Amino acid sequence: MQVINLGEKFSLIQDTWHPRIAAELNGQQIKLVKLKGEFVWHQHDQEDELFMVVKGTLKIRLPESEVTIHEGEFFVVARGTKHCPVAEDECQVMLIEPASTLNTGSVRDKRTVENPEWI
Amino acid sequence: MQVINLGEKFSLIQDTWHPRIAAELNGQQIKLVKLKGEFVWHQHDQEDELFMVVKGTLKIRLPESEVTIHEGEFFVVARGTKHCPVAEDECQVMLIEPASTLNTGSVRDKRTVENPEWI
Repeated sequence: MQVINLGEKFSLIQDTWHPRIAAELNGQQIKLVKLKGEFVWHQHDQEDELFMVVKGTLKIRLPESEVTIHEGEFFVVARGTKHCPVAEDECQVMLIEPASTLNTGSVRDKRTVENPEWI
Repeated sequence: MQVINLGEKFSLIQDTWHPRIAAELNGQQIKLVKLKGEFVWHQHDQEDELFMVVKGTLKIRLPESEVTIHEGEFFVVARGTKHCPVAEDECQVMLIEPASTLNTGSVRDKRTVENPEWI
């Protein structure tokens, strides 16, 4: 058990779209990821996914709408909902999701991370 | 599904030690609470509990140590670990824990909140 400093952890991340595990509790994981550009449309059939923006701004395209998440805000994508994260500028995001969640959900892509490392 | 702004939600909270639910996902809840002063020593036998400090500083006394959590940091208290949160000055905390988690764990106290409201 140790205190996790988000700024310190994000300073260790040099890439984008590659989530890393910062903590695990109750079968859920806290993952940290830097995002820039447009991801792939995907969905998680069995898992709700929370996006908290730590720095910057993240947009999430949904089937019939789009939400904008600013620093200090979060958004939960309900299981089964198609979504596509888009970051015009690099942003820092904390994810809360089951340990089983794959970043690209039901899709396999060059950015799929099968076994995220701890950070 | 809506974007949750932590600052806006905390501005609605006028009391301390009374957690309110901001979101639910995968059987877990995101709760927001203002803390000031010393809480009661307690433990959660089956539930890990994450404390993220959104504003201010929180100390958590543990059986043989104490951790200090600053803004932008979080700490996970593992299930079965006795702990006592202490805030010298009022702080704003985001909790992540199973929906079943009672704020005072195995203890009943005047600050026990059996059924937290949504905010």
